Amino acid sequence: MNIIEIINKKRLKMCLSDEEIKYVIDEYMEGNIADYQMSSLLMAICINGMSDEEIFSLTKYMTLSGDRLDLSSLGNVVDKHSTGGVGDKTTMIIGPIVASCGVKVAKMSGRGLGHTGGTIDKLESIPGFTSELSEEEFIRQVNNVGFADVCQNNDLAPADKKIYALRDVTGTVESIPLIASSIMSKKIASGARKLVIDVKVGCGALVKNIEDATKLAELMIKIGKFNNIEVVCVLSNMDIPLGNNIGNALEVEEVIDILKNNKQGNLRDLCIELASLMVSLGLGIDHDEALNRVLENLSNGKAYDKFLEFVKAQKGDITKLPQASNKIEIRSDKEGYLNNIDALKLGELSMSLGAGRSNMKDKIDYTAGIILNKNIFDYVNIGDVLMTIYTNKDNYNIPDDIFDISNTKNNDIKLIYKVMR
Amino acid sequence: MNIIEIINKKRLKMCLSDEEIKYVIDEYMEGNIADYQMSSLLMAICINGMSDEEIFSLTKYMTLSGDRLDLSSLGNVVDKHSTGGVGDKTTMIIGPIVASCGVKVAKMSGRGLGHTGGTIDKLESIPGFTSELSEEEFIRQVNNVGFADVCQNNDLAPADKKIYALRDVTGTVESIPLIASSIMSKKIASGARKLVIDVKVGCGALVKNIEDATKLAELMIKIGKFNNIEVVCVLSNMDIPLGNNIGNALEVEEVIDILKNNKQGNLRDLCIELASLMVSLGLGIDHDEALNRVLENLSNGKAYDKFLEFVKAQKGDITKLPQASNKIEIRSDKEGYLNNIDALKLGELSMSLGAGRSNMKDKIDYTAGIILNKNIFDYVNIGDVLMTIYTNKDNYNIPDDIFDISNTKNNDIKLIYKVMR
Repeated sequence: MNIIEIINKKRLKMCLSDEEIKYVIDEYMEGNIADYQMSSLLMAICINGMSDEEIFSLTKYMTLSGDRLDLSSLGNVVDKHSTGGVGDKTTMIIGPIVASCGVKVAKMSGRGLGHTGGTIDKLESIPGFTSELSEEEFIRQVNNVGFADVCQNNDLAPADKKIYALRDVTGTVESIPLIASSIMSKKIASGARKLVIDVKVGCGALVKNIEDATKLAELMIKIGKFNNIEVVCVLSNMDIPLGNNIGNALEVEEVIDILKNNKQGNLRDLCIELASLMVSLGLGIDHDEALNRVLENLSNGKAYDKFLEFVKAQKGDITKLPQASNKIEIRSDKEGYLNNIDALKLGELSMSLGAGRSNMKDKIDYTAGIILNKNIFDYVNIGDVLMTIYTNKDNYNIPDDIFDISNTKNNDIKLIYKVMR
Repeated sequence: MNIIEIINKKRLKMCLSDEEIKYVIDEYMEGNIADYQMSSLLMAICINGMSDEEIFSLTKYMTLSGDRLDLSSLGNVVDKHSTGGVGDKTTMIIGPIVASCGVKVAKMSGRGLGHTGGTIDKLESIPGFTSELSEEEFIRQVNNVGFADVCQNNDLAPADKKIYALRDVTGTVESIPLIASSIMSKKIASGARKLVIDVKVGCGALVKNIEDATKLAELMIKIGKFNNIEVVCVLSNMDIPLGNNIGNALEVEEVIDILKNNKQGNLRDLCIELASLMVSLGLGIDHDEALNRVLENLSNGKAYDKFLEFVKAQKGDITKLPQASNKIEIRSDKEGYLNNIDALKLGELSMSLGAGRSNMKDKIDYTAGIILNKNIFDYVNIGDVLMTIYTNKDNYNIPDDIFDISNTKNNDIKLIYKVMR
């Protein structure tokens, strides 16, 4: 076998065999296929696509490139994945809710590049919190507490990690077969048997429209079936900010508000739906019954207690969340309905305040961020505070037109497009 | 501007602007765009194509990446290019013929990777021959002799050179826009104003069928017009060996036979057509008149005298051509019409005899090679010598089925498919 022949086949839209895909992954990991050859093949895949069989093979060999976690001793475990978004803090809310309902969540999360940190960065804004547990400690905590969230293990699906890093710098991210096999190889390697995936749809998302998101969901469900994993996908809107807080410690504060049942809104709504699906999947009960248990544990305090137990188990102290020194209120000079908030621009602002990192060596300011004082559908008067900025910097850029305020109310915006299984 | 955005545009089949293409070439040459990014973009171009405007820009910036030769002092100059093939020795024949008709040929050729050497390797099999002239010596010789052939100047279109080397190892060779802009950028940089291109068509060629070859020719003619260069393309068959000799010194012997007017056949026919087109272009006379002058100078010895003058000017001594120590005759065990000779397998045999190199450090055995004692259309009897092998090696592989001999004569094989301008 020869990488140039394999690239030529895919350039000509032919299907690669299982052996050829194994060769590509193995030799790329061995360093015998160069990055410039791999990126050429990835671009051919982006444009010419892959058959289901090719995608199953790609997923399989990326999974086999590293270790595989065995969670079979844990019993009722359900995993959750999100394809990402500005202000996404759902894991920290859903994990405790689901665990309080008797379904275990063994979660691995990442640090983040870009507008805000990843879930691990957000958790690490809690003083003392550790995301580095040994595999033994991790499994023990999931068994005892029902929920643990640790830093992604680099030994799981290392081929996916290496390929993703290359895709990121070669314009080959936006491919449904590549996205699906990337997500699923990591999830298979991390031991998932039941899985709820939040597929984000929107301008800044990996998939821009419902049609592509549907294809991606169908594909992940198929890969799941092929690997004996039950997959449920929720297609949700990424063009609206989830919740009101953006920035690491600020997001933890919002998580606490929701788990204390002190706050309504789209973030809570999405978390309730995802948690209900996970509980339904984990306990084998129907959706309405699962929903009732979720709502009950939010109102009776069990979900919040589980969060406290989880944070304590990972050595965090939520009484000492850090705060920014500067707090600036931004007021409206318009009156009308708040029809849209540009999530991407909010992300850029959050980045310029210090809440994100542009490369892995940058240090995140956990206290920096934004609280939206008004959200979509609200009526705004001139002089109302639209958002509050938290930062330790003296210089930052506030982009124009973050808020779209007009006389007519937009009722078209949906949070959840559909659930697929 | 940003390379990832540019790659994404081409992935989505959008057109790149002149500024974007300038950015790609300049930054790639500066090392600010990595090979793995360039190969991803090249694959997107291979699959999604380029508009004429994009191709003009790509050609322009590859040309501008290095020096540009000025041949305007030389008067009547016509350049010639071939897209390559096994046993292609046309330059050594055409240069002297055309020069003897009063049209100057300032040729730069390459050393070769693969089955046999390039034209420079073939010329260097003549003891003493030098292919390293200074620009001044080169121009002086073209002025005095009418023909010079020197080693390609690395300072001409270095972007093409760097990109071609990458395409070669990333499965991105077979793209008509990339082939056309590669050839034309080199030719523009080397000062061509009038140009005859031999576009090879066949299984082992850059273009496999007449349709693609026609597109390539049309494109090169268009690029020529845009750059004020008259281009004529000849589409010729690469699936049949040109002439009878393969191997460096053996090919020089065949060149001498043809220039002495001692030999007929497809090599002579193609050279006469290419030379006539060049003379017609150079002198502004019609094709038939040019053809008559070419035939006349072959029969009156002026073409051969020009060859001797050219070799002497570059310090070669054709009285001392080297010879191989082993000479093995291969005989036929079949009777019938010789309908096909597998040029690719002949090339592989020639390589195993020592006539080619697999990397630039390998040393070529100038004496090694093959003489075909029978050629296409010949009738073969059992025991007839089909070919004679020349080598200094004791071990070599003779592939099966080089010769296709059968009872019915194949009259379908054409040497020249068409001429386009």
